Amino acid sequence: MAKSGSLRLGVLGSGRGSNFAAIAEAASRGDVAAEVAAVISDVENAGILQHANQLGIPGRFIDPGKYRTKLDEGAEQAYITALQSAQVDLVVLAGFMRILKGDFLRSFEGRVINIHPSLLPSFPGLKAWKQALDYGVKHTGATVHFVDQGIDSGAIIAQETVPVLDEDTPETLLERIHGAEHRIYPASIAAIARGEVILKGRRTVRRVS
Amino acid sequence: MAKSGSLRLGVLGSGRGSNFAAIAEAASRGDVAAEVAAVISDVENAGILQHANQLGIPGRFIDPGKYRTKLDEGAEQAYITALQSAQVDLVVLAGFMRILKGDFLRSFEGRVINIHPSLLPSFPGLKAWKQALDYGVKHTGATVHFVDQGIDSGAIIAQETVPVLDEDTPETLLERIHGAEHRIYPASIAAIARGEVILKGRRTVRRVS
Repeated sequence: MAKSGSLRLGVLGSGRGSNFAAIAEAASRGDVAAEVAAVISDVENAGILQHANQLGIPGRFIDPGKYRTKLDEGAEQAYITALQSAQVDLVVLAGFMRILKGDFLRSFEGRVINIHPSLLPSFPGLKAWKQALDYGVKHTGATVHFVDQGIDSGAIIAQETVPVLDEDTPETLLERIHGAEHRIYPASIAAIARGEVILKGRRTVRRVS
Repeated sequence: MAKSGSLRLGVLGSGRGSNFAAIAEAASRGDVAAEVAAVISDVENAGILQHANQLGIPGRFIDPGKYRTKLDEGAEQAYITALQSAQVDLVVLAGFMRILKGDFLRSFEGRVINIHPSLLPSFPGLKAWKQALDYGVKHTGATVHFVDQGIDSGAIIAQETVPVLDEDTPETLLERIHGAEHRIYPASIAAIARGEVILKGRRTVRRVS
């Protein structure tokens, strides 16, 4: 990962973009040596695009094509081209609801990260906060990880734990998890920008710079 | 679960019995309204039996029979009889390295608990601390749960999280997890003894008494 200067981020999202907002704010405060170079959504008029627009960051809908859970071939190439044109160093998934596969991951090898609303490897997949509540765990959390070919299976960069309370509903629990996400996602990107995140097998460790 | 008086515990263990010691100490301090009525091991001369002996608690080896990971039929009946003779209210697994099945669980339905050295459902099975370290999680922990027919799959009573440090070895991580175990296992038994642990579907919640 490039160490010098500011890391150029390409953010992909399908929703309201609260993680994008947390990252953009941290970057504008100077807490993260990074700038959001591009925001792309597979959902026309997604909140994340409106938010990018308000911040003066180039935001763009790119049609994902005919599938529901992945990009079709043409779309995948359009996403790659858009991110490469923006000279993106790191692809940041922020509520992007499609699985990224072979060509995309090869184009940004080791440079795609995601955030997941559980303590992986518990509760991969959809609605992880609801899975946790239904299972009956007493602690869940959020996980920042590199994206590999599996579902939520890549090397973990950071995790924060979140208690599950007896009186929690899916909504109250998700809100608490969002709080953790908005702390560890910017902090993880900051650590990557400083060149501190070192991959050792499938573990990551921090090099103190 | 009986509320009045002192809960009679039957502890099963295969190893040194550090969780048994933590429970016995908490009970003798009066922090847990319970007494250890019987200690049984499938390993002759296990540390847990010596420890029970030192505390004046009846400890006994019962031959597990011909299998390596479960009790054979005759042994299962001998374990049930020994625990029933000791008028045990709650069966407490403390490093017992055999899977308990049908007849045993039916004899003590909803009254068998176990502790596992991870944040379940992550890392069920053997050497959970090593699984966690190899996977690369940043937090693991300990889980007290009811025992059902699955492997480490019963309703969760309590969990405590434990950080994984970059410099951890399996041994240093396990030691930190043991610390958590020795807090949450006695506390869980105390809560059960007070009648506070309520099963709701597969979640447990606390009734404040």
